[in-house]
Amino acid sequence: MGDLDDLDNARATRSDTRRAEAFSDGVLAIIVTLLVLDLRVPDVEPGHLLPALLAQWPGYVAYVASYAYVAVVWLNHKAAFARVRETDRGFHWANLFVLFTTALLPFPTAVVSRALQEENTSDQRVAVALYALVGALLCLSWTVFFQYLARHDDLVAEAVDRPFFRGERLRALGGVILYGVAGVVGFLVAPLVALAVFVVLPVFYGATSAGIYSLRSVARRLTGP
Amino acid sequence: MGDLDDLDNARATRSDTRRAEAFSDGVLAIIVTLLVLDLRVPDVEPGHLLPALLAQWPGYVAYVASYAYVAVVWLNHKAAFARVRETDRGFHWANLFVLFTTALLPFPTAVVSRALQEENTSDQRVAVALYALVGALLCLSWTVFFQYLARHDDLVAEAVDRPFFRGERLRALGGVILYGVAGVVGFLVAPLVALAVFVVLPVFYGATSAGIYSLRSVARRLTGP
Amino acid sequence: MGDLDDLDNARATRSDTRRAEAFSDGVLAIIVTLLVLDLRVPDVEPGHLLPALLAQWPGYVAYVASYAYVAVVWLNHKAAFARVRETDRGFHWANLFVLFTTALLPFPTAVVSRALQEENTSDQRVAVALYALVGALLCLSWTVFFQYLARHDDLVAEAVDRPFFRGERLRALGGVILYGVAGVVGFLVAPLVALAVFVVLPVFYGATSAGIYSLRSVARRLTGP
Amino acid sequence: MGDLDDLDNARATRSDTRRAEAFSDGVLAIIVTLLVLDLRVPDVEPGHLLPALLAQWPGYVAYVASYAYVAVVWLNHKAAFARVRETDRGFHWANLFVLFTTALLPFPTAVVSRALQEENTSDQRVAVALYALVGALLCLSWTVFFQYLARHDDLVAEAVDRPFFRGERLRALGGVILYGVAGVVGFLVAPLVALAVFVVLPVFYGATSAGIYSLRSVARRLTGP
Repeated sequence: MGDLDDLDNARATRSDTRRAEAFSDGVLAIIVTLLVLDLRVPDVEPGHLLPALLAQWPGYVAYVASYAYVAVVWLNHKAAFARVRETDRGFHWANLFVLFTTALLPFPTAVVSRALQEENTSDQRVAVALYALVGALLCLSWTVFFQYLARHDDLVAEAVDRPFFRGERLRALGGVILYGVAGVVGFLVAPLVALAVFVVLPVFYGATSAGIYSLRSVARRLTGP
Repeated sequence: MGDLDDLDNARATRSDTRRAEAFSDGVLAIIVTLLVLDLRVPDVEPGHLLPALLAQWPGYVAYVASYAYVAVVWLNHKAAFARVRETDRGFHWANLFVLFTTALLPFPTAVVSRALQEENTSDQRVAVALYALVGALLCLSWTVFFQYLARHDDLVAEAVDRPFFRGERLRALGGVILYGVAGVVGFLVAPLVALAVFVVLPVFYGATSAGIYSLRSVARRLTGP
Repeated sequence: MGDLDDLDNARATRSDTRRAEAFSDGVLAIIVTLLVLDLRVPDVEPGHLLPALLAQWPGYVAYVASYAYVAVVWLNHKAAFARVRETDRGFHWANLFVLFTTALLPFPTAVVSRALQEENTSDQRVAVALYALVGALLCLSWTVFFQYLARHDDLVAEAVDRPFFRGERLRALGGVILYGVAGVVGFLVAPLVALAVFVVLPVFYGATSAGIYSLRSVARRLTGP
Repeated sequence: MGDLDDLDNARATRSDTRRAEAFSDGVLAIIVTLLVLDLRVPDVEPGHLLPALLAQWPGYVAYVASYAYVAVVWLNHKAAFARVRETDRGFHWANLFVLFTTALLPFPTAVVSRALQEENTSDQRVAVALYALVGALLCLSWTVFFQYLARHDDLVAEAVDRPFFRGERLRALGGVILYGVAGVVGFLVAPLVALAVFVVLPVFYGATSAGIYSLRSVARRLTGP
């Protein structure tokens, strides 16, 4: 019965990406939409609505930034899954790790947004360190995800270039290091330096969401044939 | 390796609309359902439930209005995607922009609903101006979306009429202008005029959710063959 | 260009049920899950957790009742859609009306649950009247939905019995009347009578979620061939 | 008309697993994502952010634990559905029962997390008993689910081993008993013993998410051929 067991087993653990995609789309859709719950109707005396709305500006910036970041994660997720042929249990855990760290994102964003409003430098150092920690975790989860795919050729669509997922892993690993450095610098030296890194990194990951290769093609196009 | 890169690239960026639809359906389903969280059980002394429930009437109106508006967005989204054959990265960003502005909608709706309850004219002017701003943003995102499709014939299903997306773009651009005018008039002159525009515009977009053409067909049917 | 317009139009308004199902599944999944947000960790002095948890019992009953009701709606929705071949704009609005009234359900449930806890008879009358109103609206939306399908044979799968949707419409219309009567009796005479109707009706709709026919089959089986 | 009725009936009650999967993915995605709402930005005086963030540690642990548990439920759900060919009404109710008990999970987790923070032994006993109750309910719902599949061969994919679902039922039934014992021991003797069981059980269910067989295969691999 041993072989039958294994076959039966394989049926349930190996499968196409359909349900993993549906579940991930659901989780990312909810994360992106829950963000709006942080925009509140100001609770003020009649006649003071305008200044109260304006005073919430860091909340609006945090909302736009979080939305853009989760959108970038979705684009990267979609691009990675387009290259996956089959899934197994390890792959699912790697994917669940990515969703876990992404779901965390709104929390440090809200902490930073609040710290910026209160203008207490010591709190701002703590807030950017927390944000950097979650950012590094997010990149770490992508590193694990790409690492898993780089080591499991059998899960990957045939036409995909061998070194593709290794390039992606590097891209993600760079993020772990940069968030780490930004966190240390932001905590010990200057919170604003860390904030600049927080803005630049998602833009970089958005621009390269189709893989680090796409950046190379862009470079090639810019420098001529 | 250049050509292979580009092919590989194309695989991940060019794809059918399946995941974009699933993600959009998720986001719109959540927006429409989160609205109900704004209906609260009144926190009053025993015996005063009825007046407390009745006093919440602007909340009920805001709920119905927001629900109907998001439903109209969903119908427009569905009609537009039915004409899309393939997606690329620019298209995804345009779609994510539409979802972003739609997700904002409950916020200004709640602000207007509260300002109506408190009967402070200066707050009402601010509230309708905020609503007009978000409404204009929503129409702007649709303008960008249709503009992108009008310029990228290769993404569009073959049987679709050439000028279709240009007509749609015009329909959306009209909304930007009307919301803009309503916001200025509502802020400077009469908030109630702005409110009337806010009610009429979604009804118009609902009636023409299959494209501006459908209105023409209706007109033709009314005026005879 | 007239004919082309109409064809083009038909493409975007007539379509399969896929996106409507995905959107509805999303909305119903969110409604059913948001209910748990009403279960709160009691905010009490250390050592008083047990009585505080027990005092929340109407909340638990309301949670179970709402969950079961939304589950019944999902089963009915699934059974109805299994008989739909194609969708048009009127059908989508009917479906959006059903989702709208279902999304309302947690609100009156919470109001009733709270009124039961406070033991003020006048509030309880108001609460059951509100619940009956929303229950009647829910059944009204189903009446409209089945009415639309009964009048549009072209949207219905071919193998479906002609009078099927007329039977369903009757089933839903009965609910409108029963909720109406329960509301009036509950408000004017005895709230507990209304509560009994509120418990019995979802059980009835659950038992007949495959259509009123299934009840007939059950009856036939009970009474012999 | 009798036979036609039954055929028609079968169409609507018997169907593939598509919509049940989509609905379940939606519910589980929302449960997993709503958890993050329990992480709050501390409301403290400027300059006290760090200690306030650190004091929330049981909330972080509860978040990780709940996320991991719901992820395990999703993996088990996916593995079970991969073996289901067709659904009927009884199956849907069993599935809805599983989703119901899973949706409850964040509530006792938050109660335990809070009780751990307040260090009142009597509250901790109550909290672990509540958690054990919900854990036992969760395992009970899986027992019912697998029981239903073990008794309805016609719903199961052909290639699936006969005794598979009986093994799964046993696996789930063991959980009911273990959570029950942990609850009694935790309430009467030592809360920490119960907590240890709460940590070990999801790990066990995660490791065997492809069925109890997979554990056997692992054992076989460890002990040689």
